[in-house]
Amino acid sequence: MIRLLGLDPGLRFMGWGVIDVDGNRLRHVADGVLATDAKDDVPRRLCVLHDGLQELITRYGPAEAAVEETYVNRNGSSTLKLGYARGVALLVPALAGVAVHEYGARAVKRAVVGTGAATKDQITMMVRRLLPGAELRRADAADALAMAICHAHHRASAQQIARGISMA
Amino acid sequence: MIRLLGLDPGLRFMGWGVIDVDGNRLRHVADGVLATDAKDDVPRRLCVLHDGLQELITRYGPAEAAVEETYVNRNGSSTLKLGYARGVALLVPALAGVAVHEYGARAVKRAVVGTGAATKDQITMMVRRLLPGAELRRADAADALAMAICHAHHRASAQQIARGISMA
Repeated sequence: MIRLLGLDPGLRFMGWGVIDVDGNRLRHVADGVLATDAKDDVPRRLCVLHDGLQELITRYGPAEAAVEETYVNRNGSSTLKLGYARGVALLVPALAGVAVHEYGARAVKRAVVGTGAATKDQITMMVRRLLPGAELRRADAADALAMAICHAHHRASAQQIARGISMA
Repeated sequence: MIRLLGLDPGLRFMGWGVIDVDGNRLRHVADGVLATDAKDDVPRRLCVLHDGLQELITRYGPAEAAVEETYVNRNGSSTLKLGYARGVALLVPALAGVAVHEYGARAVKRAVVGTGAATKDQITMMVRRLLPGAELRRADAADALAMAICHAHHRASAQQIARGISMA
């Protein structure tokens, strides 16, 4: 059994989800969203994300984390803000000794829905089906759990490949 | 007397400089560059910047910090990387209770050289003149000290304005 933390980073809302993986079986542990106040200055908002993430890691003790690769849009200022939030999402698990993996949005959609072109609604629906008990108060939490599911699939494939190689 | 930390953030090199300010007098305390290994993954590199900054703050105990506003260029992927580094530069002082101020490149040039159109060489020259003893092994360190000088000037102006208001 291994516990995984998925993160969907953003400066205003950072989605998070924790699952347990035992062979092919997935179990929902918890999910939610860390929110920052848009009226606060950026250093303060980054502290809120840092402290929230640190608390989640202490409370749930994940062995590994998966973070969504940020979509780089054309607005430089939005990209910079995503960079701040994503930097904190990569930093805090690493500081705690939790290995961090990164997956693009298409890889996540493929792992959860089976196609890289899946819609947001399809992802939320499949996350609910795969993880009964998920709260999903915001779509960011569903994306975070989808991230954790994606990492669970890639871990399993990597292990199968490793077994195949050692048997050859 | 107040001690200020200036930072010029980057993922590969983060320039830093510490000065003491006593009325109009500036004194160089230390400067340098935190470097990360481009071959390491991003979470590891962010840990190196985090730990390095934390150590500088513990060692020098600055009362306030000033961070350069990142120039947003057209390459989304570079902007994102700058965002990671800048996020750490805003986060770590704030976590330690050190107030963080931000200044754009033009404001810094105006404060140090007197014109917003100053060249890199002019900045380095003026930093050397204003702060005898500066090491400046890389231009990033000169930019960081220039940032601290800029913040010292803005603090002084704000205090003069505050005094003017209280006298009125």
